[in-house]
Amino acid sequence: MIALVPTMGALHVGHLELVKRARESADFIVVSIFVNPTQFGPNEDLARYPVDLEGDVAKLEAEGVDLVFAPSVGDMYPDGMTTWVHVEGADKHLCGPFRPGHFRGVTTIVAKLFNVCLPDKAVFGLKDAQQFLIIRRMIADMYFPIELIGCPTVREHDGLALSSRNIFLSERERKQAIVLSKAVDAARRLIDDGERDPRKIELAMESIVASAPDAVLQYAEVVETRGISPIDRLQPGQEVVAALAVFFGRTRLIDNTFAIVPDL
Amino acid sequence: MIALVPTMGALHVGHLELVKRARESADFIVVSIFVNPTQFGPNEDLARYPVDLEGDVAKLEAEGVDLVFAPSVGDMYPDGMTTWVHVEGADKHLCGPFRPGHFRGVTTIVAKLFNVCLPDKAVFGLKDAQQFLIIRRMIADMYFPIELIGCPTVREHDGLALSSRNIFLSERERKQAIVLSKAVDAARRLIDDGERDPRKIELAMESIVASAPDAVLQYAEVVETRGISPIDRLQPGQEVVAALAVFFGRTRLIDNTFAIVPDL
Repeated sequence: MIALVPTMGALHVGHLELVKRARESADFIVVSIFVNPTQFGPNEDLARYPVDLEGDVAKLEAEGVDLVFAPSVGDMYPDGMTTWVHVEGADKHLCGPFRPGHFRGVTTIVAKLFNVCLPDKAVFGLKDAQQFLIIRRMIADMYFPIELIGCPTVREHDGLALSSRNIFLSERERKQAIVLSKAVDAARRLIDDGERDPRKIELAMESIVASAPDAVLQYAEVVETRGISPIDRLQPGQEVVAALAVFFGRTRLIDNTFAIVPDL
Repeated sequence: MIALVPTMGALHVGHLELVKRARESADFIVVSIFVNPTQFGPNEDLARYPVDLEGDVAKLEAEGVDLVFAPSVGDMYPDGMTTWVHVEGADKHLCGPFRPGHFRGVTTIVAKLFNVCLPDKAVFGLKDAQQFLIIRRMIADMYFPIELIGCPTVREHDGLALSSRNIFLSERERKQAIVLSKAVDAARRLIDDGERDPRKIELAMESIVASAPDAVLQYAEVVETRGISPIDRLQPGQEVVAALAVFFGRTRLIDNTFAIVPDL
């Protein structure tokens, strides 16, 4: 059994949780490290995305990872490459509208990593909820013979979701950044308590983010997870995700909660 | 070693040649039979495409095929399926402009068949030159661990390329249909004799097609095979394909020749 953990490096404890989860379900663990240029927009942070291959490899060695696959851009995108894998319609909400082409870049590189590494299982974090849902759909639609495993988000003590981009936060921003997890906690509580109007849940998230003076909300949205589409009302038994993206200066953070709507 | 021979059924001797070629290079032969709806345009002949599953299976049994995979449309396109594989830019010439979406349908279904059948080798006819080139590029770009094998076009005694659509030709059209192979033969001769101007080769093909009173030319084009793009002049050592599509009534026929431009 081979399990693949695709990463962009700059590994933190959240990534190592993915590795531990992989180890539970496979005997050969491959971790890929590739900062995939096609999933960054022209105004995004590809140039300053943190890189620490040596440190990453040391961490993975300590976790007993069997193989680190760290290809070059030329390895993964040889000259003349023009084939794309796209989950149509799945990028119309959440991060999609703000990151045109991002998920097409993600699905294309993940499909290529699947074909290169031929894993039986693939482990992704749930922190990028939309990425997880789109990969899930791609695997199902394309009949990849791969079991997808999603891992819960790992958080700091105050609730901030671990992210390779957290290092860019100033001390002041770091303190305020807890509004993201507070917002998704509030959304989760509202859903659990029976709120069925997604707009009210979104407004609750928005007002929590507004309490941080340096936070600039990009979106706060509740969608059903199958089509990654907005809904008029939450239906009992439905899987939904409440997600948001917030800027602190140039640093963009995301967070979310998955929930099955309770039948109260 | 598993070899996959993807077909749309209505098998003729050309298909059986693909099976024989598969047998030479693998010990387990899978033939898929699937009339793929996503590669037919709204004005194309999906509804009248010939179907003969029982006859096909008998022919394949006689060839010693190990497995016939004949899924339903629902099997291959379950509800909510939205993932597409597309080789961008490769459908701007030859059949592409006349069949919008066709090759996206082809690459998507072939990628799915690859993931379902997990072959080591895949055998395609060279008769659909553009399909072959696009699959070749998809396999390379997506790192499918599959060896692509191309089989020369099988022809009737007078040169007409075998096609499941030949049965739609009237006797009069059938006689005239030899202009396709005559045109590609002429193109091939011109290339071999040192003609380097693709427009002159195209004109030669066009004038041969024009000699058949019922033939309506859709295109006659010379392209290099890497980008499937037109060229100003043929370069020695370059792989090119001279291809054409011709209507007889509602029946659309194609033919082509691959050539390496000689260094005279």
